[in-house]
Amino acid sequence: MAVYTEVSDEELASFITSYDLGDLLSFKGIAEGVENTNYIVHTSKGPFILTLYEKRVEVADLPFYLGLMEHLAAHGVSCPTPVRNAAGENLSTLSGRPAALVTFLEGFWPRRPTPDHCAAVGRAMATMHLGCEGFTMRRANALGLDGWRPLYDRFKLRASEVSTDLSGLVETELAFLEANWPRDLPEGIIHADLFPDNVFFIGDELSGLIDFYFACNDAFAYDVAVSLNAWCFEKDLSFNITKGRAFLRGYEEVRKLTPTERAALPILARGSAMRFLLTRAYDWLNTPKDALVTPKNPADYIRRLRFHQGVRSIADYGLNGTDK
Amino acid sequence: MAVYTEVSDEELASFITSYDLGDLLSFKGIAEGVENTNYIVHTSKGPFILTLYEKRVEVADLPFYLGLMEHLAAHGVSCPTPVRNAAGENLSTLSGRPAALVTFLEGFWPRRPTPDHCAAVGRAMATMHLGCEGFTMRRANALGLDGWRPLYDRFKLRASEVSTDLSGLVETELAFLEANWPRDLPEGIIHADLFPDNVFFIGDELSGLIDFYFACNDAFAYDVAVSLNAWCFEKDLSFNITKGRAFLRGYEEVRKLTPTERAALPILARGSAMRFLLTRAYDWLNTPKDALVTPKNPADYIRRLRFHQGVRSIADYGLNGTDK
Repeated sequence: MAVYTEVSDEELASFITSYDLGDLLSFKGIAEGVENTNYIVHTSKGPFILTLYEKRVEVADLPFYLGLMEHLAAHGVSCPTPVRNAAGENLSTLSGRPAALVTFLEGFWPRRPTPDHCAAVGRAMATMHLGCEGFTMRRANALGLDGWRPLYDRFKLRASEVSTDLSGLVETELAFLEANWPRDLPEGIIHADLFPDNVFFIGDELSGLIDFYFACNDAFAYDVAVSLNAWCFEKDLSFNITKGRAFLRGYEEVRKLTPTERAALPILARGSAMRFLLTRAYDWLNTPKDALVTPKNPADYIRRLRFHQGVRSIADYGLNGTDK
Repeated sequence: MAVYTEVSDEELASFITSYDLGDLLSFKGIAEGVENTNYIVHTSKGPFILTLYEKRVEVADLPFYLGLMEHLAAHGVSCPTPVRNAAGENLSTLSGRPAALVTFLEGFWPRRPTPDHCAAVGRAMATMHLGCEGFTMRRANALGLDGWRPLYDRFKLRASEVSTDLSGLVETELAFLEANWPRDLPEGIIHADLFPDNVFFIGDELSGLIDFYFACNDAFAYDVAVSLNAWCFEKDLSFNITKGRAFLRGYEEVRKLTPTERAALPILARGSAMRFLLTRAYDWLNTPKDALVTPKNPADYIRRLRFHQGVRSIADYGLNGTDK
């Protein structure tokens, strides 16, 4: 959480005049977002979020992310909506950075997700999967199966600094995933990072989804697997089958999983645990001690991966044969 | 700039119900404030700022600060106004910290102050000085003359790490200030830290003052001296007499300086430069390298102090005999 780029009042006031948003009233850097700099901006037309894209974001991908948010907002998925400036652009430049202004989404993420939250997230994810139909831009999943081994290669000589048994675990698992990864699953745009801090609620109602900066084309069921990892484990890293059932049933209220997807879910969950294990291990080893952000512990995903290795079918996640 | 205390959604929602502010809609930690944790909180009644007071703040002083803001807001000084909860209290507890909710003040601080800004600040400071009449709580200036030598004693053995000539400069100057410090100047409540980042503007209009956490009882003219240091030096640390004149004339539009105050201004400016030199030098030497905040360079105040040592009268700050 950090403000990487300080914006001056004069630069921002000038930037705001390029939008039909009235006068700049205030702006404050917010301590959210690991990758980018975010400000809450008040203009006479209301509150907005200003994002300055920092070095870790591929500039070439920004039209995809912003276009996706516009498409989703226009197709029934509540999310921050990019505002277009007088030139009709949703992406501009500020303080030497690519910058976008989006509508302010009220709500806040649940620190202790309940089964009801999980059900709402399942419905919202399925609504997003269906809502992406007709969105024609594409973005490959850079953190999908093909990306895992190259990422591991970048830190494998130091893997034991994370955990003494990490290299054995990762190498065996990568070989398994590469040999058995399911192809030909239904695909479309997935969020790919729908963790609790990316889903806002007001009271019990889901108010919207945020942070589409990992969104990409991939199997819908892989997105489901990511959120099983993200929402359905307790602090002690035990899997909460009540939450798993709530999430999957919520998803299926809007979009039924196919038999192939159901069968693939355990390996997709293993792959998704691998993805977060690898990125966290890499960040753990490569984040300077004095960095503005604290890296997350990769060990949590070793535990999740081991759980999924023992899963036999989707029934272990909470859906059984009677859920049709 | 930092969020030191993370507040959970459940704690905050429960906290908000103790106020007559409707439902909690959102909250985001903001990257402002060196001493405390601040959140922007939206409720169905509008935006507010939530402050959690961290360890560097004296809890016993909080009723003074909050009472002062209420008094000022009721007496024509625009500033964040503490909100009282159902129990009638403006100070409560959240996440184990003393906490207060204040109204959101629109505006933003000028990164490049102009003479017009300086004039507006002068008027606002004088309005605050007069507006404090009738406020009966008291707080001594812990960073006034009596506090400087003890503060210096805490780091004098390491003073050369800041600047090779620092100990000579400080010891000579402290002796001078102690021998010549003016007594019996008009006193009242002063802001004591009215730097540009504590004064908000919307366009050219001053919208209000913030951050009263150094406010105390002391000489009004000492507050004037602090802001001469804070507003009227350029980035190259030259004194801008046009800004000095604008600030002093703005002040005198609302409250005339007495002849004694005018005569005392050069030494008060030296004292004020000493105060910021000492606190910055202390912080410079005592802030861990991995701290969330970056200490400010004390050398800027060595330069300011040397300027004031050469000042002969208030004319050097821009007011001359014809300004009456």
